[in-house]
Amino acid sequence: METDPGNWPRMDLRPVGVVRSEIKSPMLHAGEADIELKERMEKVREYHQKVIDSICELVIFPEWEELLQGIEGFSHLLVLYWPHLIDPERRHLKTVHPMGRKDLPIQGIFATCSPARPNPVLVSIVPLLGRSGNILKVKGLDAVDGSPILDIKPYVHPPCGVDRATVPPWMQQIHKDLGIDIS
Amino acid sequence: METDPGNWPRMDLRPVGVVRSEIKSPMLHAGEADIELKERMEKVREYHQKVIDSICELVIFPEWEELLQGIEGFSHLLVLYWPHLIDPERRHLKTVHPMGRKDLPIQGIFATCSPARPNPVLVSIVPLLGRSGNILKVKGLDAVDGSPILDIKPYVHPPCGVDRATVPPWMQQIHKDLGIDIS
Repeated sequence: METDPGNWPRMDLRPVGVVRSEIKSPMLHAGEADIELKERMEKVREYHQKVIDSICELVIFPEWEELLQGIEGFSHLLVLYWPHLIDPERRHLKTVHPMGRKDLPIQGIFATCSPARPNPVLVSIVPLLGRSGNILKVKGLDAVDGSPILDIKPYVHPPCGVDRATVPPWMQQIHKDLGIDIS
Repeated sequence: METDPGNWPRMDLRPVGVVRSEIKSPMLHAGEADIELKERMEKVREYHQKVIDSICELVIFPEWEELLQGIEGFSHLLVLYWPHLIDPERRHLKTVHPMGRKDLPIQGIFATCSPARPNPVLVSIVPLLGRSGNILKVKGLDAVDGSPILDIKPYVHPPCGVDRATVPPWMQQIHKDLGIDIS
């Protein structure tokens, strides 16, 4: 199998905008790796609620504003962004306890929503509240202030929506602990 | 606003695997830009049906296989990949007629699913049919053979799923023309 990077296309990204949000730091800091479960879940719940309620701005750089033409026709968007506060060393992580919870079984990174990934391009699906020129207002974006925006895509069902998706027990447990209705 | 690339994190991607598919070329070739509407829609319908029915393999490079641990617990995945056959010059496109249809109003690239984008990281949501070591079998992936895979994420509803998403009339028209049920 051909894994020599010299034979692949050059895949460089450049920011097309930046997230402006009241959320200034990620859910859990590296220094909080060892806090105990109850306190951890309390922090996660708090953060999760803050994200759900937050309204933030996607500030698209003026040179890309024309690409937004017609975006108001969609109720929801996929936002692709880069978690710029993640230490690049963490791109080499292979497995984790989900959300750092040692009571949950170790999972491969591809089976989790961890922002530490080989290619940390994060995807968030959010309702579009409005547009003012080069600025989009959205709700519930799980990105910290200053995150570089890579792409905006329309949410279309299908192919984006799935009627009956199932998740493993450990993720059902997280949803239950966070009080998220997944029905 | 700070748009100087020197002040942004280095956002380089590397393939973690490759798509193996019977689909060898994109929906519409550059040489087909001027075919007339009826023939164009026939080609798009044919391609769309071929994609829906196709079963393809996501061959993850052995060095990343460990990241798949637990992936079988999810029924659906988000696959991020790079459209390697797109001419890099097309990353500068700003607006298009959706699917090249001049009967539909011009849209900004961010309001379309065009693979020609400033950062062409494509997202496809697909059912996971099975796993054999470093190879995942999925259905309906809209990627041509040889596409570099960038990331695999679990599909979780919420936040991936949206109950009542709306799209503009031009996309409703495309769905109608393709016979896609969006209810």
